[in-house]
Amino acid sequence: LSHRLPKLFSKAQIVQALERIAPEDVIAAMRRAFAAYSGGAANVSPVVHLGFADPPGDVHVKCGGLAGDDVYVVKIAAGFYRNSEVGLPPGSGMMIVLSARTGFPQAILDDQAYLTDYRTAAAGAMTAQLLAPSSVEAIGIVGTGLQAHLQLDLLRHVTPCRTAYVWGRDPVKARAFRVDGFDVTPVASVGDLAQRCNLIITTTAATHPLLFAHDVMSGRHVTAMGSDMTSKQELDPNLFAKADVRAVDSRTQCFDHGDAGFAVREGIVPEEGFVELGEIVNNPQLGRTDKNQITVADLTGVAVQDVAIAKLVYEALS
Amino acid sequence: LSHRLPKLFSKAQIVQALERIAPEDVIAAMRRAFAAYSGGAANVSPVVHLGFADPPGDVHVKCGGLAGDDVYVVKIAAGFYRNSEVGLPPGSGMMIVLSARTGFPQAILDDQAYLTDYRTAAAGAMTAQLLAPSSVEAIGIVGTGLQAHLQLDLLRHVTPCRTAYVWGRDPVKARAFRVDGFDVTPVASVGDLAQRCNLIITTTAATHPLLFAHDVMSGRHVTAMGSDMTSKQELDPNLFAKADVRAVDSRTQCFDHGDAGFAVREGIVPEEGFVELGEIVNNPQLGRTDKNQITVADLTGVAVQDVAIAKLVYEALS
Repeated sequence: LSHRLPKLFSKAQIVQALERIAPEDVIAAMRRAFAAYSGGAANVSPVVHLGFADPPGDVHVKCGGLAGDDVYVVKIAAGFYRNSEVGLPPGSGMMIVLSARTGFPQAILDDQAYLTDYRTAAAGAMTAQLLAPSSVEAIGIVGTGLQAHLQLDLLRHVTPCRTAYVWGRDPVKARAFRVDGFDVTPVASVGDLAQRCNLIITTTAATHPLLFAHDVMSGRHVTAMGSDMTSKQELDPNLFAKADVRAVDSRTQCFDHGDAGFAVREGIVPEEGFVELGEIVNNPQLGRTDKNQITVADLTGVAVQDVAIAKLVYEALS
Repeated sequence: LSHRLPKLFSKAQIVQALERIAPEDVIAAMRRAFAAYSGGAANVSPVVHLGFADPPGDVHVKCGGLAGDDVYVVKIAAGFYRNSEVGLPPGSGMMIVLSARTGFPQAILDDQAYLTDYRTAAAGAMTAQLLAPSSVEAIGIVGTGLQAHLQLDLLRHVTPCRTAYVWGRDPVKARAFRVDGFDVTPVASVGDLAQRCNLIITTTAATHPLLFAHDVMSGRHVTAMGSDMTSKQELDPNLFAKADVRAVDSRTQCFDHGDAGFAVREGIVPEEGFVELGEIVNNPQLGRTDKNQITVADLTGVAVQDVAIAKLVYEALS
């Protein structure tokens, strides 16, 4: 009910606050957020895009709240790919926490996209918790960027497996890939990685499929994190046909600009062939029911994830 | 190019900064903003709406920038009509100024909707400058709220006329209406006001017409400021048919949720019968060409106005 100036928090303060929150609590918050989203208990606006030509840049604004929450969140995320020329990271962003009772702003989290990175990894861990075989023998990470590291780091909270294989377009980066507590081995091909691992995460900016239907044997789970616009694609669309469970974070978003959209547009799987992650949270029978099944999940990122993490961090900072 | 924490400015600081800016400069900035908007030199995203049920509230998020500008602006505007129950004003809001070169946030203007109120009044003054008869004999204000006061206050910068008449639903408020330097007389009806004044501004939350075609004689200009959603209506749609020049701030917005939309939907005036204010700025021949003409303008508020005022204030604060 404050009429005062909202509090402004720096990335350093936000990272510190996040360190005081148990990762399991963030993962649980993602479960609740997806359940609310798929259960119609979330209030999420369409994503707004603003494009810039010179220098090239993309800005996305997402707004949303969960039914019954005291706050709602507006997130501004910017990507300017030539920022390195001026010594800045490409991504920036902030989350603004506002009162759902009065509309007044409460806090500004100038996280510079860190909360988006972290909630994306937490959603990956949640997806593994929902769909991966109960006995994970080895984790395969396709990609070597920040998100690839965060995905593996968060998976420690949902599986005792500490054996990982990594593939990257750049073998130097694959060899340098390290995450505390994991035994990580670089592999020469995505096919090789898919042979060795029964939990596979793709997290690249690929624009053509890296993982093919014939690579993926029974008893495996695949999460595709990388495709968040129509130009990006990580999975062979036929993998969706081969899978027993085909999950998406958001039907609307994934059919529009996720990996699942390729399978739908190419007539490989009908829209009815997909289930939302939140629906699986609400009804686990919609997920994996047998260890030999193949499960695939496609995530594009939904505003409820931003709401969930911003709320946790705001509470930790208050 | 800053990677630092953006600067956070309070409403008090923003009001002080605005006092250092000549109102004529704000009005001129509105002219440029509308010219850019109608000339295709503005980058404006669709308005995002988030609705709340309990307590009832509406949040709108607008984003945009002008071609060539160093900054772009995201505005969050909230209206929670029961805030008075907890001692807060209904409206709040902030404008966030971000770099159009890197995407990084530069400043947060926690103006609590003041900049929106001010830019709306500045657009009213600009509209009078564009369309009112060159000799304004008397100004008629329909409405007695904050915006009614601001409209008259800003008009002093575009006309030497200091004679005003005011009509309000609440006669007590109409009698109490004062703006420094103006001789204001309350009148008993909108029709009476339209007889006496050749520059008329409606700025109410009316949901049914207040000003009728038969009230408006030749040589008058009418600006309707109040209608910003489909449920609101201030003007008799037949007034648009009677007018020689029918202006809108934005075709898309006004046909969707402005007063002009009623005239279009009821088949009274075709869409081609309207001109945008920015088109008149770019080509004055599209505006008033004779003192005896009737001109009508419908404003719903466009994001370029937010961009223009946020930029001016940001520069004054820097």
